[in-house]
Amino acid sequence: MIAVLKSSATKEQIEKLIAWLKSKKLAVHLSEGEFCTILGLVGDTSQIDIGLVEGLDIVASVKRISEPFKRANRKFHPDDSVIDICGLKIGGSDFQIMAGPCSVESKEQILGIAKSVHASGASILRGGAFKPRTSPYDFQGLRADGIELLLEAKKQTGMPIVSEIMNANHLPMFEQVDIIQVGARSMQNFEMLKELGMTKKPILLKRGFSNTLQELLMSAEYIMAGGNNNVILCERGIRTFETCTRNTLDISAVPMLRELSHLPVVVDPSHASGIARLVKPMAMAAVAAGAHGLMIEVHNDPQSALCDGAQSLTPEQFSETAERIRKVREAVAA
Amino acid sequence: MIAVLKSSATKEQIEKLIAWLKSKKLAVHLSEGEFCTILGLVGDTSQIDIGLVEGLDIVASVKRISEPFKRANRKFHPDDSVIDICGLKIGGSDFQIMAGPCSVESKEQILGIAKSVHASGASILRGGAFKPRTSPYDFQGLRADGIELLLEAKKQTGMPIVSEIMNANHLPMFEQVDIIQVGARSMQNFEMLKELGMTKKPILLKRGFSNTLQELLMSAEYIMAGGNNNVILCERGIRTFETCTRNTLDISAVPMLRELSHLPVVVDPSHASGIARLVKPMAMAAVAAGAHGLMIEVHNDPQSALCDGAQSLTPEQFSETAERIRKVREAVAA
Amino acid sequence: MIAVLKSSATKEQIEKLIAWLKSKKLAVHLSEGEFCTILGLVGDTSQIDIGLVEGLDIVASVKRISEPFKRANRKFHPDDSVIDICGLKIGGSDFQIMAGPCSVESKEQILGIAKSVHASGASILRGGAFKPRTSPYDFQGLRADGIELLLEAKKQTGMPIVSEIMNANHLPMFEQVDIIQVGARSMQNFEMLKELGMTKKPILLKRGFSNTLQELLMSAEYIMAGGNNNVILCERGIRTFETCTRNTLDISAVPMLRELSHLPVVVDPSHASGIARLVKPMAMAAVAAGAHGLMIEVHNDPQSALCDGAQSLTPEQFSETAERIRKVREAVAA
Amino acid sequence: MIAVLKSSATKEQIEKLIAWLKSKKLAVHLSEGEFCTILGLVGDTSQIDIGLVEGLDIVASVKRISEPFKRANRKFHPDDSVIDICGLKIGGSDFQIMAGPCSVESKEQILGIAKSVHASGASILRGGAFKPRTSPYDFQGLRADGIELLLEAKKQTGMPIVSEIMNANHLPMFEQVDIIQVGARSMQNFEMLKELGMTKKPILLKRGFSNTLQELLMSAEYIMAGGNNNVILCERGIRTFETCTRNTLDISAVPMLRELSHLPVVVDPSHASGIARLVKPMAMAAVAAGAHGLMIEVHNDPQSALCDGAQSLTPEQFSETAERIRKVREAVAA
Repeated sequence: MIAVLKSSATKEQIEKLIAWLKSKKLAVHLSEGEFCTILGLVGDTSQIDIGLVEGLDIVASVKRISEPFKRANRKFHPDDSVIDICGLKIGGSDFQIMAGPCSVESKEQILGIAKSVHASGASILRGGAFKPRTSPYDFQGLRADGIELLLEAKKQTGMPIVSEIMNANHLPMFEQVDIIQVGARSMQNFEMLKELGMTKKPILLKRGFSNTLQELLMSAEYIMAGGNNNVILCERGIRTFETCTRNTLDISAVPMLRELSHLPVVVDPSHASGIARLVKPMAMAAVAAGAHGLMIEVHNDPQSALCDGAQSLTPEQFSETAERIRKVREAVAA
Repeated sequence: MIAVLKSSATKEQIEKLIAWLKSKKLAVHLSEGEFCTILGLVGDTSQIDIGLVEGLDIVASVKRISEPFKRANRKFHPDDSVIDICGLKIGGSDFQIMAGPCSVESKEQILGIAKSVHASGASILRGGAFKPRTSPYDFQGLRADGIELLLEAKKQTGMPIVSEIMNANHLPMFEQVDIIQVGARSMQNFEMLKELGMTKKPILLKRGFSNTLQELLMSAEYIMAGGNNNVILCERGIRTFETCTRNTLDISAVPMLRELSHLPVVVDPSHASGIARLVKPMAMAAVAAGAHGLMIEVHNDPQSALCDGAQSLTPEQFSETAERIRKVREAVAA
Repeated sequence: MIAVLKSSATKEQIEKLIAWLKSKKLAVHLSEGEFCTILGLVGDTSQIDIGLVEGLDIVASVKRISEPFKRANRKFHPDDSVIDICGLKIGGSDFQIMAGPCSVESKEQILGIAKSVHASGASILRGGAFKPRTSPYDFQGLRADGIELLLEAKKQTGMPIVSEIMNANHLPMFEQVDIIQVGARSMQNFEMLKELGMTKKPILLKRGFSNTLQELLMSAEYIMAGGNNNVILCERGIRTFETCTRNTLDISAVPMLRELSHLPVVVDPSHASGIARLVKPMAMAAVAAGAHGLMIEVHNDPQSALCDGAQSLTPEQFSETAERIRKVREAVAA
Repeated sequence: MIAVLKSSATKEQIEKLIAWLKSKKLAVHLSEGEFCTILGLVGDTSQIDIGLVEGLDIVASVKRISEPFKRANRKFHPDDSVIDICGLKIGGSDFQIMAGPCSVESKEQILGIAKSVHASGASILRGGAFKPRTSPYDFQGLRADGIELLLEAKKQTGMPIVSEIMNANHLPMFEQVDIIQVGARSMQNFEMLKELGMTKKPILLKRGFSNTLQELLMSAEYIMAGGNNNVILCERGIRTFETCTRNTLDISAVPMLRELSHLPVVVDPSHASGIARLVKPMAMAAVAAGAHGLMIEVHNDPQSALCDGAQSLTPEQFSETAERIRKVREAVAA
């Protein structure tokens, strides 16, 4: 971290600041120039609140040289993290497709979709039991019953399951869920992240719709700081001025996150576009850009889906998409 | 709500859709034109999930005529809501200033600031006990101890207090807190909003940094749907491309929210700009635009604040700002 | 176009509005419901200024059913447009790579790069002669001399050339330039678009960094309205809150533009990311998403480039990228 | 400017870089730390292209200490600039209201509005002759005839006039126009800015709808670099995710621009909101925040306006707004 001091800073003020920084166990490297004084700070600067230093009267500006995240940082963990999900691996050269309905609606529905996507190449079953909805009057999910139905589908197909949590109090219900999803709106629910950090569950952490990659990695850091390193990052589209699509898939997030972090990176092309016919090209693009996995909404009857039908593929469309994904993966790996 | 159907829709499909809509207790008004068929839906359309209807194959587009919020809607509640806080009123022609430190740090600090801002014109004391921080390594607040110190300051000054909640499990600790603040990052923590809706506490609901006014009002609706109508809306700046300021105060939110809703509207110029020397002009602008209240950060020693020192006023600056606010209020009312 | 009238509209007002709409040669379909009156407008509604109608006191809201662009609209031109550039074709199943330096710097530089990228698979040479720079003190391009050097490179390699125009007065200098580029900052320079519409030159129209796809297509419409149908659309990244990358590539723009319009769609991964090491994955993603072409910056010595060196590939990196692009194209087509 | 070099930089590379920087007439202050090497650059760094330096292999990051604009910078011109418009002054303690129709439509219209707004407190007449419209099929303004009509209104009322230019070739037509407006879409039409810099005309420079304040000031710098210091900055709303208002007025731009620059700052509440009933509160807020002037759309018959009727005040509403503005100005000055 580098702090540039104002030329008006007095010697006494500078010494006071240096003493404070040293009390934080940082080595301070002072460089007095003719036009400004620069402090170079060496040590664990991730524990320094940059806003505090910027707020000081004698400080003109502060710049981090190293990122404020450590456990998620590739610099301190050069190899790709590979996360194990009931024997399936994701990360490094291991690729997985998660597929299933936006919402679990009935036993028949979830079992039908699970068997179908399993046969076409999906290895993990997704399904929402708790649904964050903008309106209190919209369908809020089957909740506990939805989790039960997912577990039944897991039993019958052998597929691990992933489902979203909205309240840390619900953790006991997620005991047999294989991957716990943190949705975009909860990415900065820091209290919940802390509790997830105290479990050992793989966490699928979705990027908030207006959050930066650094903020996403800081939220991963919250989970990892508690001792849980099983974090999977998920790009699911950001809010932009474009109105043709529900969100805008930030495809550059894939190589950028892989550069900044060792954690696996997954893309959700269904929420990113909100339009079923864009899912195939977006999924192909995500794989071409280096994604470790995909999360795709599939519904046996999108026209009657209780939620997000407009963005769900039919099982037939999913099968065709999965086939195309295989081809692009070969082109990338070749 | 109006649904425009595609010209390819068959008579049978249209009839099926109409039957479904009628099952939702809506009156359906059919208008077959030469170029498209239009369905006008009358009734409580707030219970209809617009995404579901848009997702239907035969539907070209859907447009709400009425807003999807009811309890927060001025149409059904033409008069300004006035909320009572221990005898103080906010809303309508009643205006209040909330002031205090970003974080409660010590007994001496909070008592000193409380007395000082009270003397200069603030009527409600703000202070953070639970702090949402981007980094797990930053100061997270004094938590339960912070609430205790606020209560002590309330006892000594008689000022009602407002403080942020981050976890519905903490509600018992907020029993004597007069206004519970929902921070920008929690605006769409729907599970927590539901629990706050089951209390009778005044809730200060801050707008998320990338949320629209309609989304803010839908979150107010979550609280009100539970039976708690004591919601105060707070504009605290949105994320834009501008980098000179931390956020961008959306000043037009003030008259726009007052038009859409009957709830009181408060502005937080401290978080909106992130720069102490902008707080006075932003506070004056908010009052000129019609705000029912202000929330301003004040710190006795901003240089040593544990959080957000850069945006805090000194007690002297606050006093000067409060004086200026009075003058602008007179000009607005005159 | 559908106009929803307020319930307060009088019969006389409605009749006056209908008469005005009919004077615009529109058929008006009136539907009086119990809760509102709806006007369905049939005919060439692209000539109606939606803002004017929305501004009327009796109008509650207006919704376009058909897009406001005609000549660029796939609905009226179902087949892909294929544009001929000196015998090379772009659009439909024809794919081209444009490569070259951000700025033309010297004869030696442009000739060297041109020969090198030609050998590795680029078919069109890009090079900036007029450079839009944020600062008046930055390098503004070799201007007329730059065009001369591009023409020399065209002569020696046989490659068609593409270069940016910043002022319609410069058109005579672009007489032998094969594709005229309209930069992101000029996308809504309507006066210049009109003049380009009066030529027959292929125009590469870049999307403005905060413009929607509809606005891009309206700018294409400006050119086409003048009689020039040779428009190539280019996605080059939009401004978002992300700071790791210079811009954010909107990859969904590729399939979305192809759905809305018949015009060829090209992607510029160099400007979209601003980081050389992201160009290869972004180029692969663009091809996987269905782009008809790519525009890639290549510099023989990025470290000494007078402009945008950070995002330029070396000729070796370009060759490797072009090879990978071929593989992804095969996977897409297979 | 400070450049942080990577620890991998060799002594030879560092020396080469220092030599290059010295060739740019910069003094270089080298500081070798244990963890990185820092170069402090003193001199006229506004001529250094920051992207070039950032692109170098050995550079980890670059930070400007001083802004890249000089002539517009308050640091080098501490006193407010006051600009003279036919004897009227704007800037410092001088405040002016510009009012008039979005588009000049007829002699009767412009004369009627001019007389009316003059009587109510406007000192400068605005009116569009050349109109930038998103669609080529929308009304494009009366062009040369519109300028003639404005000149006629100027003659009859004595009010100076302001009108937008869209093409530098039109400059001869603007010879008697008192303030030339550069619209939001032209803010980065650098070729036109250069030509305006060679005149002595006051220029009203509007901020682009997604541009930062620094970019606005760099565009002012383009004009001033040519020798024309008569630049008036105008905040007119930026694009955000909010859909209730056409744009979002960035009210903090007012105090921020006044801090960064000595140029006068004007606000256009009509375009900023796009809704007539928001113009009064936004105008009051702008004055409370310290604006040197306002630009307000007024139309005698907003329902029939050929452009932007929805945001125009009637003469009566304008008169009431002007009265309220006077009151807020007094409160600010008191």
